[in-house]
Amino acid sequence: MNYRMITYIMGQILRIVGLCMLLPLVVGAVYGENHIFASFVIPAVITLLLSIIFTVKKPKNTAVFSMEGFVSVAASWITMSAIGAMPFVISGEIPNYVDAFFETVSGFTTTGSTILSDVESMSRSCIFWRAFTHWLGGMGVLMFVLAVVNSNDVRTMHMMRAECTGPNVGRLVSKSSFSARILYGIYITLTVAEIIALLICGMPFYDSIIHACSSAGTGGFSMWNDSIAHYNSIAIEMVITIFVLLFGVNFNLYYFMMIKKFSLVFKNEELRVYIGVIITTTAILSCTILENYSSFGESLRKAFFMVGATITSTGFATTDTGQWSTFSQTLLLLLMFIGSCAGSTGGGMKVSRILIIVKTGIRELKYIVSPRAVASVKIDGKPVEKDVVRGASNYFILFMLIMAISLLLLSHDNFSIEENISAVITCMNNIGFGVGRFSTSGNFGGLDSFSKLILCFDMLIGRLEIYPLIMLFAGRRH
Amino acid sequence: MNYRMITYIMGQILRIVGLCMLLPLVVGAVYGENHIFASFVIPAVITLLLSIIFTVKKPKNTAVFSMEGFVSVAASWITMSAIGAMPFVISGEIPNYVDAFFETVSGFTTTGSTILSDVESMSRSCIFWRAFTHWLGGMGVLMFVLAVVNSNDVRTMHMMRAECTGPNVGRLVSKSSFSARILYGIYITLTVAEIIALLICGMPFYDSIIHACSSAGTGGFSMWNDSIAHYNSIAIEMVITIFVLLFGVNFNLYYFMMIKKFSLVFKNEELRVYIGVIITTTAILSCTILENYSSFGESLRKAFFMVGATITSTGFATTDTGQWSTFSQTLLLLLMFIGSCAGSTGGGMKVSRILIIVKTGIRELKYIVSPRAVASVKIDGKPVEKDVVRGASNYFILFMLIMAISLLLLSHDNFSIEENISAVITCMNNIGFGVGRFSTSGNFGGLDSFSKLILCFDMLIGRLEIYPLIMLFAGRRH
Repeated sequence: MNYRMITYIMGQILRIVGLCMLLPLVVGAVYGENHIFASFVIPAVITLLLSIIFTVKKPKNTAVFSMEGFVSVAASWITMSAIGAMPFVISGEIPNYVDAFFETVSGFTTTGSTILSDVESMSRSCIFWRAFTHWLGGMGVLMFVLAVVNSNDVRTMHMMRAECTGPNVGRLVSKSSFSARILYGIYITLTVAEIIALLICGMPFYDSIIHACSSAGTGGFSMWNDSIAHYNSIAIEMVITIFVLLFGVNFNLYYFMMIKKFSLVFKNEELRVYIGVIITTTAILSCTILENYSSFGESLRKAFFMVGATITSTGFATTDTGQWSTFSQTLLLLLMFIGSCAGSTGGGMKVSRILIIVKTGIRELKYIVSPRAVASVKIDGKPVEKDVVRGASNYFILFMLIMAISLLLLSHDNFSIEENISAVITCMNNIGFGVGRFSTSGNFGGLDSFSKLILCFDMLIGRLEIYPLIMLFAGRRH
Repeated sequence: MNYRMITYIMGQILRIVGLCMLLPLVVGAVYGENHIFASFVIPAVITLLLSIIFTVKKPKNTAVFSMEGFVSVAASWITMSAIGAMPFVISGEIPNYVDAFFETVSGFTTTGSTILSDVESMSRSCIFWRAFTHWLGGMGVLMFVLAVVNSNDVRTMHMMRAECTGPNVGRLVSKSSFSARILYGIYITLTVAEIIALLICGMPFYDSIIHACSSAGTGGFSMWNDSIAHYNSIAIEMVITIFVLLFGVNFNLYYFMMIKKFSLVFKNEELRVYIGVIITTTAILSCTILENYSSFGESLRKAFFMVGATITSTGFATTDTGQWSTFSQTLLLLLMFIGSCAGSTGGGMKVSRILIIVKTGIRELKYIVSPRAVASVKIDGKPVEKDVVRGASNYFILFMLIMAISLLLLSHDNFSIEENISAVITCMNNIGFGVGRFSTSGNFGGLDSFSKLILCFDMLIGRLEIYPLIMLFAGRRH
């Protein structure tokens, strides 16, 4: 393994993180939170120094293969979470380091699970940093590096693959640094559009930035204890729902629209299924939660918001779903597994992977009857490569195995099996809320440190889609 | 599809069921339960008449392929459950037909879930019939037909495959009717051995037959409300645990022992993992439930019994596991999925399938790093056929998909998500008990008819391993 190149890549990632840590200082300056300055400056300086040490000499051998890509991405994500947690600890707003680490991992992985029972008591700088980790983690830090560094190296593809989501990562253009720039361009444009839309709806400027960052990464951290319900505004709820759904779409499709290849967008099977699932479940939920609300309009509003927040794995809340019927809750639970589209900032198994898995299952039924007369699995009318089909099935298997092991490790704590299952599901799918003590009205603060670290691992497993993390810990060194 | 042949096979199966329904008459005669006679004679006569109609003329075209095998097995299992439920209804002991159907499906599929809150109020004849469905369903009725009918047709293999469990069904000898006879021979021998062992432990003769039938099929129906705890005898618990574990072993291995091919038994990886899992989990559980009992001896006794009852999917109980720690309960939950060995009477995913799945997952991790340097999945030191590997993965996927759909359909009832999940898991793995209202101290009587039918479907899905039932309902007709 090319260790020199791994540290070099980590150095570049740390530079971005270090610089980003200076952003909360602007917030601090605006709101006069001078006491918070040191909390960000100290870790930022450490990070930048580390980055200089790591990148002072470019390695002669720049070869990067799958293994190096996976390991550098996994190591970077853990390191930046470890560093990103420092402001919370130094400022004393989250005194326990494991708690702060959990909160930061939850931020970068865009999970949105919190250990805080009272978010509102935090400083504005820390709330901003917390939401900004969502934004940075949503599209990925390495992707940011690729967008900034002008690399001609085709092998950076291996790194892109390690951070991107979905069963099959394709480059938009032949140069991956250019691909990264296009994706970040779309990402920034959409985020700014959401800030403007929220401002129009009457949300204050600071609040708009926080919630736009949170929606962009499909994370879920809010600045209020009662999340989006705080505003009690239909307009704000609609804007946020529509934007999280937009962030849950494969970003490649926006590029296709930019270059006017509309047919590629309309033909996209994943998008059609994604929209179909959203419409169907919203319609069903609106009817099944009708008894909880005074009018169909209100239940439609609640249903649409929760479907958007759940399928995109954002985890914002406008209601306590624990009050809903078991059927409605089960429907949301299944949506968590489906997740958003591949190549989006959303979590879950991804619609395309679920599509491949379901089609593989149906294909198996046909195969059992007549082994010779079976066609291959098709997506968008074209046969899916065997490797991708096998990969999707095995991803599902590994996902379930890791879920089972996590559940067992988590069960030493005194929570119920139901709560533990929901915690593992919400963390591995990067949603943010579970049931019982982990529901929208609760938090993850009651777990012990070991359980918190298990869930940190699960959140990273979900965001980086299993392989990078396993490779870092169990990969063969050679 | 060869419908004539399907009805012909069904006719032969119904003859066996009809004749078996006369056995409870013996019990009735011994215990003077004359009022119960009609309850068994009427359905037995109907069944035998139907069987005569179906088999009066052997079809000219005896061709049986996978499709015919699956459909005839699925249709037979549903028909025999529908008929097997009649004695309960006619006798008035389970007046509701859906309840009686649930109880019978639970019997034949060796699940052992009951809708009864008070088993002890039943007549001895009905209790015998209930336990005997376990015995018949354990090894399979079609297998019984194959053992009785002297068929030279190699294509009966398709039918055998549809009723046997595990990822890869091999015949012991070239003629499948001879294979079936060997398997039933072993089955009867083991059952008789258990009856004798229970008698030696001081259990009354009738009780011994009931519990031997229940253990042989790894079912779980007892004649007492508090199941095996009723006897409060270490000897009886040990005998039952050892026998259910023996019934959870691949029956082919017993044949290998008979023909003195001991090396095939010792080398068997599935058996070694099965034994390894039993020893490991018993050891861990004994320690984790120590706080619930007065001595290590007692917790070891409870742990060993519950591990045996759970991994073999029997579902007997000697304790209320709801009192155990979350960790201990989670461990049992995972054991439910593993299940017993392929080709045994036990349920679950089967050890060999889990082995293949885990190895496939590990193989995928290696593949991700270096696609060219990856060897095939091996069991017993030999590479597993690609079809079997793909089949095991897809079985797992279909299993999970059906679980998700069942969970959603079940959720209209007013039970908690946790209870519903446990009900689906326990039925699909043919265990018998879940948590909450479905725990060892509860029953399934509180569900509505629709939910009961969903769970009947799940129990059949689990026992017949998905394909036959799907083929019956969704298979293409041609």
